[in-house]
Amino acid sequence: MTKVGIIGGSGYVGAELLRLLAHHPEFDVVRVSAESNAGARIGDLYPSLAPVFGDLEYAPTEADSFVGFDLVFCALPHGASQKILPALVDEVEHVFDLGADFRLSAADYLQWYGEAHSCPELLDRFSYGIVELARGAVEAAEHVAVPGCYPTTVNLALAPLLADGLVDSATLIADCASGVSGAGRTLKTTSLFSEVDSNVGVYGLLTHRHTAEMQLVLSQVGSVDATVLFTPHLVPMSRGILATCYARPIGASPDTAALLARYRDFYAEDPFVTVTDDPSGTKATLGSNSVHLTVRYDPRTNTIIAIGCLDNLVKGAAGQAIQAANLIVGLPETTGLPLVGLAP
Amino acid sequence: MTKVGIIGGSGYVGAELLRLLAHHPEFDVVRVSAESNAGARIGDLYPSLAPVFGDLEYAPTEADSFVGFDLVFCALPHGASQKILPALVDEVEHVFDLGADFRLSAADYLQWYGEAHSCPELLDRFSYGIVELARGAVEAAEHVAVPGCYPTTVNLALAPLLADGLVDSATLIADCASGVSGAGRTLKTTSLFSEVDSNVGVYGLLTHRHTAEMQLVLSQVGSVDATVLFTPHLVPMSRGILATCYARPIGASPDTAALLARYRDFYAEDPFVTVTDDPSGTKATLGSNSVHLTVRYDPRTNTIIAIGCLDNLVKGAAGQAIQAANLIVGLPETTGLPLVGLAP
Amino acid sequence: MTKVGIIGGSGYVGAELLRLLAHHPEFDVVRVSAESNAGARIGDLYPSLAPVFGDLEYAPTEADSFVGFDLVFCALPHGASQKILPALVDEVEHVFDLGADFRLSAADYLQWYGEAHSCPELLDRFSYGIVELARGAVEAAEHVAVPGCYPTTVNLALAPLLADGLVDSATLIADCASGVSGAGRTLKTTSLFSEVDSNVGVYGLLTHRHTAEMQLVLSQVGSVDATVLFTPHLVPMSRGILATCYARPIGASPDTAALLARYRDFYAEDPFVTVTDDPSGTKATLGSNSVHLTVRYDPRTNTIIAIGCLDNLVKGAAGQAIQAANLIVGLPETTGLPLVGLAP
Amino acid sequence: MTKVGIIGGSGYVGAELLRLLAHHPEFDVVRVSAESNAGARIGDLYPSLAPVFGDLEYAPTEADSFVGFDLVFCALPHGASQKILPALVDEVEHVFDLGADFRLSAADYLQWYGEAHSCPELLDRFSYGIVELARGAVEAAEHVAVPGCYPTTVNLALAPLLADGLVDSATLIADCASGVSGAGRTLKTTSLFSEVDSNVGVYGLLTHRHTAEMQLVLSQVGSVDATVLFTPHLVPMSRGILATCYARPIGASPDTAALLARYRDFYAEDPFVTVTDDPSGTKATLGSNSVHLTVRYDPRTNTIIAIGCLDNLVKGAAGQAIQAANLIVGLPETTGLPLVGLAP
Repeated sequence: MTKVGIIGGSGYVGAELLRLLAHHPEFDVVRVSAESNAGARIGDLYPSLAPVFGDLEYAPTEADSFVGFDLVFCALPHGASQKILPALVDEVEHVFDLGADFRLSAADYLQWYGEAHSCPELLDRFSYGIVELARGAVEAAEHVAVPGCYPTTVNLALAPLLADGLVDSATLIADCASGVSGAGRTLKTTSLFSEVDSNVGVYGLLTHRHTAEMQLVLSQVGSVDATVLFTPHLVPMSRGILATCYARPIGASPDTAALLARYRDFYAEDPFVTVTDDPSGTKATLGSNSVHLTVRYDPRTNTIIAIGCLDNLVKGAAGQAIQAANLIVGLPETTGLPLVGLAP
Repeated sequence: MTKVGIIGGSGYVGAELLRLLAHHPEFDVVRVSAESNAGARIGDLYPSLAPVFGDLEYAPTEADSFVGFDLVFCALPHGASQKILPALVDEVEHVFDLGADFRLSAADYLQWYGEAHSCPELLDRFSYGIVELARGAVEAAEHVAVPGCYPTTVNLALAPLLADGLVDSATLIADCASGVSGAGRTLKTTSLFSEVDSNVGVYGLLTHRHTAEMQLVLSQVGSVDATVLFTPHLVPMSRGILATCYARPIGASPDTAALLARYRDFYAEDPFVTVTDDPSGTKATLGSNSVHLTVRYDPRTNTIIAIGCLDNLVKGAAGQAIQAANLIVGLPETTGLPLVGLAP
Repeated sequence: MTKVGIIGGSGYVGAELLRLLAHHPEFDVVRVSAESNAGARIGDLYPSLAPVFGDLEYAPTEADSFVGFDLVFCALPHGASQKILPALVDEVEHVFDLGADFRLSAADYLQWYGEAHSCPELLDRFSYGIVELARGAVEAAEHVAVPGCYPTTVNLALAPLLADGLVDSATLIADCASGVSGAGRTLKTTSLFSEVDSNVGVYGLLTHRHTAEMQLVLSQVGSVDATVLFTPHLVPMSRGILATCYARPIGASPDTAALLARYRDFYAEDPFVTVTDDPSGTKATLGSNSVHLTVRYDPRTNTIIAIGCLDNLVKGAAGQAIQAANLIVGLPETTGLPLVGLAP
Repeated sequence: MTKVGIIGGSGYVGAELLRLLAHHPEFDVVRVSAESNAGARIGDLYPSLAPVFGDLEYAPTEADSFVGFDLVFCALPHGASQKILPALVDEVEHVFDLGADFRLSAADYLQWYGEAHSCPELLDRFSYGIVELARGAVEAAEHVAVPGCYPTTVNLALAPLLADGLVDSATLIADCASGVSGAGRTLKTTSLFSEVDSNVGVYGLLTHRHTAEMQLVLSQVGSVDATVLFTPHLVPMSRGILATCYARPIGASPDTAALLARYRDFYAEDPFVTVTDDPSGTKATLGSNSVHLTVRYDPRTNTIIAIGCLDNLVKGAAGQAIQAANLIVGLPETTGLPLVGLAP
């Protein structure tokens, strides 16, 4: 068995790691830490986890206690990983950071997160863990920066268009909708049921930090600078992200059938990507590590629309991290990860 | 009192007319017809209406029975109004058709609805009832074609930009989200709770018929042909429409502050339009006849974003019809119509 | 116009008072106070209220500033009203306290709320404001203790049975379900959307404080001590309370038809009570001040089931307070209060 | 591999069988039939299943085509299983009927379902498949009648009390709440999102057919006739059942601590039963095969309250069927079945 630790196990991403690892055949969760919840039983915070982790208590978040672990998943807010991981990067086999601290260059981090990175010298030791776009790099990675939920959706939806140079990379629009779990378990008025219920609205208008990750990855995929206008919406559901992306063709666009064929070919080796003729709703991916994609060319307005959806806590966070971990330790990519969604 | 009839009173729009008219001080609902539900008590179909209309029964849908009424609201599916209203346009003071039959030219109707209009000679007797953009025409109208829910949202959100010639009318994108009540009370798998819950998805991709109304109105407002790419999404809530609209500036755009000031000025005389600094969510308008709007210029991507929301059954249908009726009979526009939303 | 003030206007009950008073023809809201939100604009906290109260700011909560008002509605948490109202009971015409401080005897308050009442000498100046069970007392009241949301539902559902001595008052069970707005706008993990969504559970098991109000009122109605086992459940919706109440008949019970007839008779003069043949769901009352009731006798198990529902923020709080205020100032009871619910 | 067929695979229970079997290591789904959906691709009806069953088509429902299968799961409405299963009970190793046709005696079936059973001679060949209360009988069963969702919840919640003779079996009350998926994918107005959302209500008042199964099982467990007053409620969520059960003690009741200890002991060998100190909400069990239980004695009202919850489509249907199948073929009971719930 592979010895696994979780840092920051009392938030929603941490709980989702526990949910998925509860039934993983090779990964053995030995230690789970939490800040303010240290000492509490996991089953008391998350009764859903009680049947497997009922009596395990959250440990305090001390780097020392994870020394020698095979895999450490770190699910802390941005800024916090930078503080604790320098003490672990040489002491455990592989770190998977699910926050934003090791995804961007120091310059981009400063620009979008508004503060200087505290350990820029470690950035090179983390690979950006989007398996479908960089499987080789992830397999060979020492440590992994697990991508954000919105960028995973948008980047997988747009990547084939940019890889083929089909669209103008300077006028990309990513209009997205997310469930509320993306905001975490933190207490905020805007996350209260009575505020979210029967309500759809825009937030983070023009300034959402995930823009940086979209531009970073799409620029690499397309080998040309990409500019993304990203508009996130909050919708009344717990989980799920939908990305509706608009792009202007360069020259004559392939028609919809050709685009769909290209998408299927592009992701032919990816068990977690399903290209569908008709657009799936987010519930098709609920609880699974799958992404559903479709694409259209609209001759009337000369626009390509690429649509993707996934579960933000699974493929957008915990599941994607485990997918990378599977690869790194030499397991089949799908080990312990659901392909099918919980519907209805 | 003004004698009011409702044709098609057992669907969601019909029920919403009844909800609003229950407390209207001048309009007296005398007869409500329904097709398959004729003979049923209103309070049995809609227990919410029982305290006021509990014992009133749905009458059969016979045009004759409405002859001589002051106001007739017709809430039938498209195609059905054309069949019954020719018998009424000369027999009642004012007809308010809440379906799509009298909104478009015969040519546009054929193109987008796929069938020839059966009484094109009557189209000129209906005014398109968007009070905020054509108050004078509505006040003077004989009969009114009540605008659709999506076009009302999008057109009010974009009108000031087009009126001022600030944006390229050929590349407009209207990315919208709607609650499920817009699909009516018809039995469809896609309207079942278990399908809609925890789910966000696109529908009507590239082909939604409301596109025609957006292009019609925005072309008139801007005095230049407008092309709209309209993408509707279904979100897990009963009511509400949010429109997030993207437009490319022509020349240098005013900044956000100037745009907000322009919007406030444009709608200064409109009690049902509230321009907010921050984008409102749909719940701010729940149950009310209000529209909330905001606007941004993003210099990074050189894009203007206009955002609007409303309650699809009120400002997007029944409330807007009553607003027009108030004007036509000489009442204050706001008579009997809520300005504030039901939140939380 | 009647000069109205609201103390504690930034919580959900305060916002609901503003929603209803926005369209009240006689009550003029002049001052609204809040603790931590003093200085904020009402329209910023509640965009739904912006069309009417957009620019009004929350004032600090100082008793002095309300001296001379006709009506003051106080929507503070229990314990807080006791501190501020002694300075106002002689300085304003009528106080309506929507918290728990003036509903119970000092002894009951100590028992259920776990602390001594700080001004028991004022308790007699407040009438318990359940209009349907004590209209005369409310009309003549100086000040009013507005009943709690659960007790209003349960007491109206059971009152006819106890008034007629039909059931054993010692074995009453009130199994209730509530939307989350009842927990207010306070930040609590258990009120987060992701915790409440797709979730139904019991809370306050065996110890909920509203039990005291049920026993108090039902004992008075039945002229014999009543004991209630009250089990509240939280359901994934914002508003609404449903009470399913079980009672054992004393002697032979009337059958269902006779019980329904008795309920209709009992509430014949009450515009806000609708007795229905079939049980209504809570949505029938959404946003309205109505209560829907039905009743059954089950010969198989020899049990009477009484079922009631209402909107906890309207008939269970703000609407009921305004209903009492209407009566006290001599207006028709229904002035400014919706009878029909917002459905769908 | 074990050769598995599903009859009635296009309803919600059928889809849930497919979701769970998609990742079962030993059961191989070879044929899935459907009535009206024969010929459709599974992935088109349920995009969630596309990653595993995307190209498999629903076959017509012909008994012949399942001859020789190891396991056949039948998820048809009551009445339909009786028609097709007589042709299969001698032709496949084990049938698991998820409808109501083989759960009750012919007399009880007639009484509660209102029609005579068409093959009463087959009833003895089906064991009632509640593993936790009859593990030995299930292990030895030829065919299995899979229990209903409500009875599973209520019976597991009350069984320890009746087994020990602690409560009066004639005055049991089971007040339950269910998500809407229990009504299946059938088109009904009462299952529409806009009707269910923001709504809680009673249905099937005094007459719900699942009462029969509760009385049957609890009578067996307690060796004395049990009478249950069962009140189901519909709540705005897709999945989940909560049962709040009230029972009167016979003689002096054990206190809460003793009751909790007794429950833990009673279910000590059951991996899918978790007894918690505090009551879990249904979301703790979402997507899992677990049941959460707790119990209280209330000395104030001399009542025992037992509370249970589960996912109606898993432990209440598909998961419970697979649990029984695992046992019958000699696999560990938990094979392929999640223990932890999908939360948040």
